[in-house]
Amino acid sequence: MDANSMKVTRNDGEWIWINGKTMPLADARIGVEDRGFLFADGVYEAMRLYRGRPFGVKEHLERLERSAAAIDLALPCCRDTMAQEIQRLADRSELTDGLVYLQITRGCSVRNHLFPDPSTVPPTLLFYTRPLAPLPAPGEGAGISLLSVPDERWKRCQIKTIALLPNVLAKNKAAAAGADEAVFVEDGHVNECSTSNLFAVVGKTLVTHPLTNKVLPGITRAIVLEIAASVGVGVQERPMREDEAKSADEVFITSSTRELVWVESWDGQRVGKGRCGDVTRRLHQAYVERVREEVLPHVAVA
Amino acid sequence: MDANSMKVTRNDGEWIWINGKTMPLADARIGVEDRGFLFADGVYEAMRLYRGRPFGVKEHLERLERSAAAIDLALPCCRDTMAQEIQRLADRSELTDGLVYLQITRGCSVRNHLFPDPSTVPPTLLFYTRPLAPLPAPGEGAGISLLSVPDERWKRCQIKTIALLPNVLAKNKAAAAGADEAVFVEDGHVNECSTSNLFAVVGKTLVTHPLTNKVLPGITRAIVLEIAASVGVGVQERPMREDEAKSADEVFITSSTRELVWVESWDGQRVGKGRCGDVTRRLHQAYVERVREEVLPHVAVA
Repeated sequence: MDANSMKVTRNDGEWIWINGKTMPLADARIGVEDRGFLFADGVYEAMRLYRGRPFGVKEHLERLERSAAAIDLALPCCRDTMAQEIQRLADRSELTDGLVYLQITRGCSVRNHLFPDPSTVPPTLLFYTRPLAPLPAPGEGAGISLLSVPDERWKRCQIKTIALLPNVLAKNKAAAAGADEAVFVEDGHVNECSTSNLFAVVGKTLVTHPLTNKVLPGITRAIVLEIAASVGVGVQERPMREDEAKSADEVFITSSTRELVWVESWDGQRVGKGRCGDVTRRLHQAYVERVREEVLPHVAVA
Repeated sequence: MDANSMKVTRNDGEWIWINGKTMPLADARIGVEDRGFLFADGVYEAMRLYRGRPFGVKEHLERLERSAAAIDLALPCCRDTMAQEIQRLADRSELTDGLVYLQITRGCSVRNHLFPDPSTVPPTLLFYTRPLAPLPAPGEGAGISLLSVPDERWKRCQIKTIALLPNVLAKNKAAAAGADEAVFVEDGHVNECSTSNLFAVVGKTLVTHPLTNKVLPGITRAIVLEIAASVGVGVQERPMREDEAKSADEVFITSSTRELVWVESWDGQRVGKGRCGDVTRRLHQAYVERVREEVLPHVAVA
């Protein structure tokens, strides 16, 4: 086995595109004075690969544009070019199931809170691939446990920034208590989770927080709201009291890498019937079908 | 001129110690999956070099310990070792006036909000030097202008984390309005500035925000409060209404790199007499003497 093929073996689907260059992820480096490293001055996206294709790439890149605009950061190339390069990297990775993580920062320059001149300091743009295990079919996976934590984040949570320390601390607080995910609670109401959006099924109605500065506009969240009618449930986007959410018939979280995951317990108390609820399962099934519709036409028949 | 001496010339006092290795700052790199870059999962300090010595290094490293503890991050070495290595790097830089910037993050590992195992993923510790211009003598420098902005930061501002995007955005909002520094205002009260603490002189009293979760416990702030008695002013640590602060006799900011800087205008209106006030100047003078006392005994008589 020569050095090159060893590298490919070690690499195992982990490739990165960084400022126009492609290399194994483990070989990529950034400067110490990158503003992403010193100031969290950047935004990001995470997409899931299905059959080697990033699902919802258009929606993710639209959100990236909104996040970047919200922090006055100009993207160095258009959405179509980015989508093409992401697909090219996904092809190179040869992954079927995987992650595409994308990040853009305001570049590398002498540390100063003031923005550098973008004509001399280009942004740092990168995206990388990594294998992910296939997800369980709707209704077949294990449920998760939630822990309520105070929402200590900043006031612009609708922007998908890399200033994630509060989310990191919340997630680890949950883990320390034996829970899988943290729910941000503020003034007695639930906002979202540390790495996902939160939904509750109350009777025949699907309830989730409206799109304010308190929640991230999740791509999976939006699709779930779109497909709710197809499984016969109404939708309410409104803040929920913590006790109302905890006593809902079903609770689930959504994220691009995990799709829908049902909640088994919350602060140590069973949620609903303690198994994946019917509405959650049917919504998840409809989501998976949506993924299939987008991804399948592009896959050659073997 | 050979390659080595060229490097020293280019380098110009910019040296970095990173995980035990010393090199020119421009040569230093970190991994893309450093948690400082992906999650803002780290804390930092910035000290000023006077005559080649970092002022207040003990206080800065104590605060670093508190910041790290607040985010459950274990420091890889003790304070004395860090202080020695910082002095060694300062010596190597041959700088008289300069900056020592120090940062520690939770290391480089596969992206996951959950903390990595510290026994296999060591933190990333680095500090670097950079020249700074000497500061004007007390009362001789230009004043600065402030702009009030809403405080949109998270709820644990007493921790000196690298999740600085809200501060970066505030500072640039001030700059866009032609101002030098942003003042965070919340519920009609002033907390602190985007890169400094804020003081007002009201009659014979020095007023600044108490040490709550709304302000960073500045090293310069603490010294100014200590020396206030020596210039004949009392001290009140209490929240100030924005209008009270704006109509104070004197207003100034403090930071380790800028010492004390008097405020000339705020939201376009003149502050005090529009020049450096007597109390500010005398406090600054006392501060400079404190620096001299700490730094001078260690400097060999030329």
